[in-house]
Amino acid sequence: MSLNEDLQWRYACKRMNGTVVPDEDLNRILEAIRLAPTSMGMQLFKVFVIKDRTLLDKIHKEAAPRQLMINGCSHLLVFAAYSKLTSKDMDDYIQRLGVTRNISGEQLEEYRVKWNSLLDIPEDEVFEWTARQTYITMGYATLAAASLKIDSTPVEGADFDTIDQILDMKSQNLKSTLLLPLGYRDEKEDRLAGAPKVRKDAKELFIF
Amino acid sequence: MSLNEDLQWRYACKRMNGTVVPDEDLNRILEAIRLAPTSMGMQLFKVFVIKDRTLLDKIHKEAAPRQLMINGCSHLLVFAAYSKLTSKDMDDYIQRLGVTRNISGEQLEEYRVKWNSLLDIPEDEVFEWTARQTYITMGYATLAAASLKIDSTPVEGADFDTIDQILDMKSQNLKSTLLLPLGYRDEKEDRLAGAPKVRKDAKELFIF
Repeated sequence: MSLNEDLQWRYACKRMNGTVVPDEDLNRILEAIRLAPTSMGMQLFKVFVIKDRTLLDKIHKEAAPRQLMINGCSHLLVFAAYSKLTSKDMDDYIQRLGVTRNISGEQLEEYRVKWNSLLDIPEDEVFEWTARQTYITMGYATLAAASLKIDSTPVEGADFDTIDQILDMKSQNLKSTLLLPLGYRDEKEDRLAGAPKVRKDAKELFIF
Repeated sequence: MSLNEDLQWRYACKRMNGTVVPDEDLNRILEAIRLAPTSMGMQLFKVFVIKDRTLLDKIHKEAAPRQLMINGCSHLLVFAAYSKLTSKDMDDYIQRLGVTRNISGEQLEEYRVKWNSLLDIPEDEVFEWTARQTYITMGYATLAAASLKIDSTPVEGADFDTIDQILDMKSQNLKSTLLLPLGYRDEKEDRLAGAPKVRKDAKELFIF
């Protein structure tokens, strides 16, 4: 299926039918997230992949009661961004760069000197920066899912402080930013299945 | 080409070769941006599509001197997010929803009542919210470009205050967030063309 068809096919599914996404398809969606671009390729995020029904019910009830599609989803992705950047994160990044691209010695040290100032960014600015990256990766996940005819619904409307507590994010230097339930649309129950997309005209969005 | 091949093919191109992207392909990339999901489908962003060489040189020189790919790009997309949300924006959104989905009267008023509290969000929070949405749309643009074998390079490293001045963003209630040069990789000059991707292993990114 072409990208254009995928773009038309996907929508913010509001009711899912409980069918389980096969592991092979799930892994393709996760691979799109892994390969997505992020700032400098640093990937300062993690994604919780949840399919345990008890945990899904708890998140739904306590942190996102209006998001009814969580009831019928197969997996829930919880995107989380680093709440701080440590020298260990920077060391890991430099080391990964060196190993992957076969760089070492002085050349690698030059990168370290160039990027070390990132460690001086105040903590709240770090999070705003890392949080934005999760929106790219989430977007990639929605397109990968659509290419497999799997529905997904980006969710900003949740109590992320509660989700952080449920998933013990703080001790991992993480803060949740987005939910993405994955599954299959319940065409009977979802009145938005098949509804026309509400979008601005190109002339309202683009300035030439 | 499959999504997986597109994901592998794309990279943050550092040198472009000056070849012009055909209008038909440009329009497909813009259509992916237009159809991308954003918060509530409100699309509180605009994209400046720049191909005038004098303007490109000015932006490159004054606001993004390290981004050498701007020299050889075909078009530069400048993503900008709404810096405030006005009641007119809300009226337009409600009206668009009503017209597109054939909703009117009381039902439409219910939506208005439900969403009117968005107008109370403080201005700096509005921008952080709208800025994040531009990361989704930019991501969609990179995948649409890759599917057409067009290179693109997300740029956060620019002086966006200067870009705002050059493009007179303030008077339009906009603030720029990202640049995305579009074009074709210069394989001879770009030492990163063909370099292996630096990415964390899945086990470092995903928590099951």
